[in-house]
Amino acid sequence: MLERPPQFKELSPSYLFPEINRRKEAFLKENPTVELLSLGIGDTVLPLPKVIALALEKGAAELGTLEGYSGYGKEQGLLELRTKICSRLYPNLSTEEIYISDGAKSDLGRLQNLFGGNVRVGIQDPTYPVYVDGSILQGVKNIELLPCTPQNGFFPEIPEGLDLLYICNPNNPTGRAYTREELKVLVDYALKNRTIILYDGAYFSYIQDSALPRTIYDIPGAEKVAIEINSFSKMAGFSGVRLGWTVIPKELKFQCGYPIKEDYHRFGCTVFNGASNIAQKGGVAVFTDEGWAAIQESIQYTMTNAKLLKEKFEEEGCRVHGGENAPYLWIETPGRQSWDVFQEFMEKRHLIITPGAGYGPSGEHCIRVSAFGFRKSITDFI
Amino acid sequence: MLERPPQFKELSPSYLFPEINRRKEAFLKENPTVELLSLGIGDTVLPLPKVIALALEKGAAELGTLEGYSGYGKEQGLLELRTKICSRLYPNLSTEEIYISDGAKSDLGRLQNLFGGNVRVGIQDPTYPVYVDGSILQGVKNIELLPCTPQNGFFPEIPEGLDLLYICNPNNPTGRAYTREELKVLVDYALKNRTIILYDGAYFSYIQDSALPRTIYDIPGAEKVAIEINSFSKMAGFSGVRLGWTVIPKELKFQCGYPIKEDYHRFGCTVFNGASNIAQKGGVAVFTDEGWAAIQESIQYTMTNAKLLKEKFEEEGCRVHGGENAPYLWIETPGRQSWDVFQEFMEKRHLIITPGAGYGPSGEHCIRVSAFGFRKSITDFI
Repeated sequence: MLERPPQFKELSPSYLFPEINRRKEAFLKENPTVELLSLGIGDTVLPLPKVIALALEKGAAELGTLEGYSGYGKEQGLLELRTKICSRLYPNLSTEEIYISDGAKSDLGRLQNLFGGNVRVGIQDPTYPVYVDGSILQGVKNIELLPCTPQNGFFPEIPEGLDLLYICNPNNPTGRAYTREELKVLVDYALKNRTIILYDGAYFSYIQDSALPRTIYDIPGAEKVAIEINSFSKMAGFSGVRLGWTVIPKELKFQCGYPIKEDYHRFGCTVFNGASNIAQKGGVAVFTDEGWAAIQESIQYTMTNAKLLKEKFEEEGCRVHGGENAPYLWIETPGRQSWDVFQEFMEKRHLIITPGAGYGPSGEHCIRVSAFGFRKSITDFI
Repeated sequence: MLERPPQFKELSPSYLFPEINRRKEAFLKENPTVELLSLGIGDTVLPLPKVIALALEKGAAELGTLEGYSGYGKEQGLLELRTKICSRLYPNLSTEEIYISDGAKSDLGRLQNLFGGNVRVGIQDPTYPVYVDGSILQGVKNIELLPCTPQNGFFPEIPEGLDLLYICNPNNPTGRAYTREELKVLVDYALKNRTIILYDGAYFSYIQDSALPRTIYDIPGAEKVAIEINSFSKMAGFSGVRLGWTVIPKELKFQCGYPIKEDYHRFGCTVFNGASNIAQKGGVAVFTDEGWAAIQESIQYTMTNAKLLKEKFEEEGCRVHGGENAPYLWIETPGRQSWDVFQEFMEKRHLIITPGAGYGPSGEHCIRVSAFGFRKSITDFI
């Protein structure tokens, strides 16, 4: 008879966002006339640019035609899409090193499953909950949270000898984007320790400062130590469409010398069947010149939101981090529990934010405010 | 430094269908003018019915509008879709027990990950390779292959005390559909042994004989022992669109009494973000009366293919199983290795089939012929 896998008992009782939703629904049940502004989960709200919506539409329509129908695709994704991603973002890598996924979250899960429980893992704290929870679900016992706080400039001290190091850059939730020098410290650490960096670049397109690196592979040597996980969700508003990509350079090897990409691919062939063919057609449109220009407008819209929110909270006397190269503000709430601040903001200001504690112990006494939202509701709030 | 997970070394060198593709491409490179008829992988070829393609198109188009845009959906899927599936197929279950996935293969992978490596697993042999390979990838050591051969009517003897029992019905690859009495034997076994049945119903819509059960939940007690994994791929031609569903009844419990669906849901919330919103809109259309009628036409088309192929191979003197309630023929090739038959069919008859050995040791001396294909190419072959 099936025993409950013991690692499930080690998880916190609820994943962060469902818990926020639960509290929100409870509040709305008691206060049905209140309109809440949600700057919590960080969900995209803007309609897709026409050129991209049209490509999705066309991808759907052609499935109803004899010439346009397609069934199973290659597990690694449409060659056209992989080629376009490679040439625009990773000119020093090859198309064979790019794999299309149904989103960063699912592909992180597959990578975690691939690497298993017998690893020593370092994770930035605060952090996107999937790194910790997903590791726990694989039975990882050896998780080291690496505090990233205003005091250390959100750059962690890293103990020697990690097998895996999760880096989210620009960071969710702190909004911090690392400099080239900082990323070089991480790559040098990984080269020295033979650590694999799981680099989540899902917010790279929000980097405004052209001096900041937009991919880990801008750093020499990264192709020997880093897997980059990426996503169309925030970049192109595909959070519901589900599309992402992962870069696994061929130089990345297990200790025995076997290429990681071979096992990743085999794993994907066995328990994944690729991203939706319709979504991939939309993805191709994102990477055309016209699509790329169109998504920049949405990105700029969100970054203007971030600027307005940042000014507002600074006027209120808060210390606000992020919001300049990432769509998130990370606001200090000294001396106050972040779930209490969450509750107060919801009840008094009718604003949903995310409590910093939801991202790990070093997130306590901070809150995350997302800049994804309609301008009018944000200016109304301000 | 990362060690290669040892279970990867236990896998056969290549997943079945990529290996078939490799051989096919090698042959075509040497024989570029040959046109091969592919009845191998069992990929769908017919355009989607208009009503369904239109719903996908509309689902894509509305993402380009302010009113129609949607971001992250619920991880368990669109309520409308879950409700429709529940009321059409599972009138005795509730919507809360239906979860939308991006396909049976991926969801099997998530279930295997959830149950982990410390389980005793029984799997029909021959079988869909994902059950075995996916289990090996989770580190399952205790896999018992249960021969299903013409000699035992493709119904296995089952040892006492299994934790998990995989049943694919109608079966891929043998095309056998179990009777109510046979499914009852399995459910009674599971009730007695407190075994969880992982019931893959991906071909249920091909059952022609109205006396045969189309879901495991037609058998009393199944809601206490069975998870049903299902798919739009073969039913509605969504193999590239990626959509499926899984039924986890609330009465299903781990040994400690904890509901399996709670951990499944938590797992999904952590490392899955739901199926594509566009695909789900298409799924809703499949489950309307108009959509349901439309997909029956494609199903009948494929089943006529099956009938023609079955007659052809029987005329040639073969013993042919399946093809009456499933889109696959299972053809005996006594005394001959199935990869040799594969090679001969490809080289001499220009037909791609699937070698039975690819489905497990009891599949040797048989081949699978898929009925998915265009009528004309099948009649030309005949």
